[in-house]
Amino acid sequence: MELFALIMAGGVGTRFWPKSRKQKPKQLLPILARRTLLEDTIERLEGLIPLEDTFIITTAEQLPVVKEAVASIPEENIVPEPEGRDTAPCIGLGVSLIAKRDPEATIAVLPADHHISPTKDFQRTLSAAASLAESSRGLITFGISPTYPATGYGYIHRGKHLKDFKEAKAFKVAEFKEKPDKKTAKRFLRSGEFYWNSGIFVWQVPTILSAIKEHLPSLYRGLETISASLGTSRQAETIRETYPHLPKISIDYGVLEKAKNVLVIEANYKWDDLGAWPALVRLRGADDEGNTILAKHIGIDTKDTLILAKEEHLVATIGTQGLIIIQTPDATLVVPKARAQEVKDLVEKMKEAGLKEYL
Amino acid sequence: MELFALIMAGGVGTRFWPKSRKQKPKQLLPILARRTLLEDTIERLEGLIPLEDTFIITTAEQLPVVKEAVASIPEENIVPEPEGRDTAPCIGLGVSLIAKRDPEATIAVLPADHHISPTKDFQRTLSAAASLAESSRGLITFGISPTYPATGYGYIHRGKHLKDFKEAKAFKVAEFKEKPDKKTAKRFLRSGEFYWNSGIFVWQVPTILSAIKEHLPSLYRGLETISASLGTSRQAETIRETYPHLPKISIDYGVLEKAKNVLVIEANYKWDDLGAWPALVRLRGADDEGNTILAKHIGIDTKDTLILAKEEHLVATIGTQGLIIIQTPDATLVVPKARAQEVKDLVEKMKEAGLKEYL
Repeated sequence: MELFALIMAGGVGTRFWPKSRKQKPKQLLPILARRTLLEDTIERLEGLIPLEDTFIITTAEQLPVVKEAVASIPEENIVPEPEGRDTAPCIGLGVSLIAKRDPEATIAVLPADHHISPTKDFQRTLSAAASLAESSRGLITFGISPTYPATGYGYIHRGKHLKDFKEAKAFKVAEFKEKPDKKTAKRFLRSGEFYWNSGIFVWQVPTILSAIKEHLPSLYRGLETISASLGTSRQAETIRETYPHLPKISIDYGVLEKAKNVLVIEANYKWDDLGAWPALVRLRGADDEGNTILAKHIGIDTKDTLILAKEEHLVATIGTQGLIIIQTPDATLVVPKARAQEVKDLVEKMKEAGLKEYL
Repeated sequence: MELFALIMAGGVGTRFWPKSRKQKPKQLLPILARRTLLEDTIERLEGLIPLEDTFIITTAEQLPVVKEAVASIPEENIVPEPEGRDTAPCIGLGVSLIAKRDPEATIAVLPADHHISPTKDFQRTLSAAASLAESSRGLITFGISPTYPATGYGYIHRGKHLKDFKEAKAFKVAEFKEKPDKKTAKRFLRSGEFYWNSGIFVWQVPTILSAIKEHLPSLYRGLETISASLGTSRQAETIRETYPHLPKISIDYGVLEKAKNVLVIEANYKWDDLGAWPALVRLRGADDEGNTILAKHIGIDTKDTLILAKEEHLVATIGTQGLIIIQTPDATLVVPKARAQEVKDLVEKMKEAGLKEYL
């Protein structure tokens, strides 16, 4: 069976404001990867999934820049959501598009804005997952072995070991766990039975559609309407009219936590969801003072500070510690590393304040 | 006797970097006053000292911008120092220039970059000082009554009250005190016998020249050489050749601390030497959160923060406290208020690092 890619590229990554903007979202920022994260995501599939079998769901706003960024992908494979309605409708739409091409397709669902390396190990896990999805008719999640007691990720509690599957370590999923507190995260880490849920999934079209039918019937009905229009002149209009009425819910809450046939495959590669600015420190490393300086910089007594600025702009710091300073032509952000998650709230506040030109 | 103004406008005010630059020094920044501090300094003399009796000593680098900024001052009254050699040579040069016009002139020596208000009270004190300089043949300093135990100013310990002088409170100077530690500053404040030395002086030409002759004879000889050239074709060349050999010393250390005929007049106006960025908070005030925001700004939990940015540049802050953020087109500064004095060191470090284009 053929393996298709469904890349979810609809997020803005507001936690990376002021670099990420509506017109230049996180996955199109070159700062976080060699090229852009979206290009990296596609390149990571090279040799495994052909470009014509790669589909991208993005937003109407990002459509032109995404098309330009990944000109190698057939234009009809890049489809905009009329509005963001979380991952279940997004995945549903993508699955419907691929099902039109191959109703038995195996699909790898991939976020466009994560960091993964090395590619070789990723592809090995992905191949194993495809094989498992086909043999088990299960919904395959990718579990990352935690390296620290993270409180920012959802966890997967693994259940029964699938000993017969030899291509990778695979387990039944015992339970999904929402972002834990520190104490619980430490317990998860110690037990060795928990994985980070990395948001990558592999399944066959019939498996995911029947799971959606069972657990999100209203989404299923909407997808039926959309499917009937695909390839016709009514496609765009139908998506535009139907999509806003689909339930706004994540695939995790809406389907995976309820479904019985959910498996987890152990992902043996380096993974980072690049959730917020401190991820840049993890990617780029820090100097002896703990500083990550991606700018022209002069400092006195500057420690554990992340600085990013536009070319030729000098950032000068005295006595900063644990601080993030991000400078762009029209906006500057100053936030302690410990509060980097709140950049999302800040962007919300900007929306409310009508500061549209900076979003 | 005629009252002349000698305005010292040679400083860069490096503590106000990145706004103050070699080509746009502190006294030419409009941010600290209604117009620029230099314009304010001149305007403050209106009705008391005519423009043709106002002299400005500046640097070669600043000469063009100073001339442009104060086009109302006769061009020949604006003279550049070939290099900075502290205040004694600067004042000596200015006094020599004025002496050429009126060998008996009374001169008010005024820094170009201080904040003073209200003008009415300042002029009253200045008139009184001129009168005192003439009647006493003394070197008149201006003492500011301290309002807090400042450690950043030099102090003047007042001596015998000059009861016969009725135009203002005047005293003999008992002693000059260098910048004190906190404990000493508190003692000074409590005693009521100490003033801040505000760097404004009034004296007659013969009085200051004879004091220089006595206490800085090498400066006096240099000034004689310069004086002989003034108004001739050799003026510029003579200043250029003589000046670098003059002793590099302040008028306070070099003359006032040694002279016997030094008086202090109590200055009853608001004064601020605008020493570093926190002065902007004193001038502009702060909102209920302690913030002084001179920029487009959006913040979460932002307190006691000073923000200044170029027009239309958005500064976003989360969880900052006691911080200064100054943003200009080519440089951004982030420094805690408590360490604002170190901006001077930072600028030194920039010089050493060869970051000339940002100085």
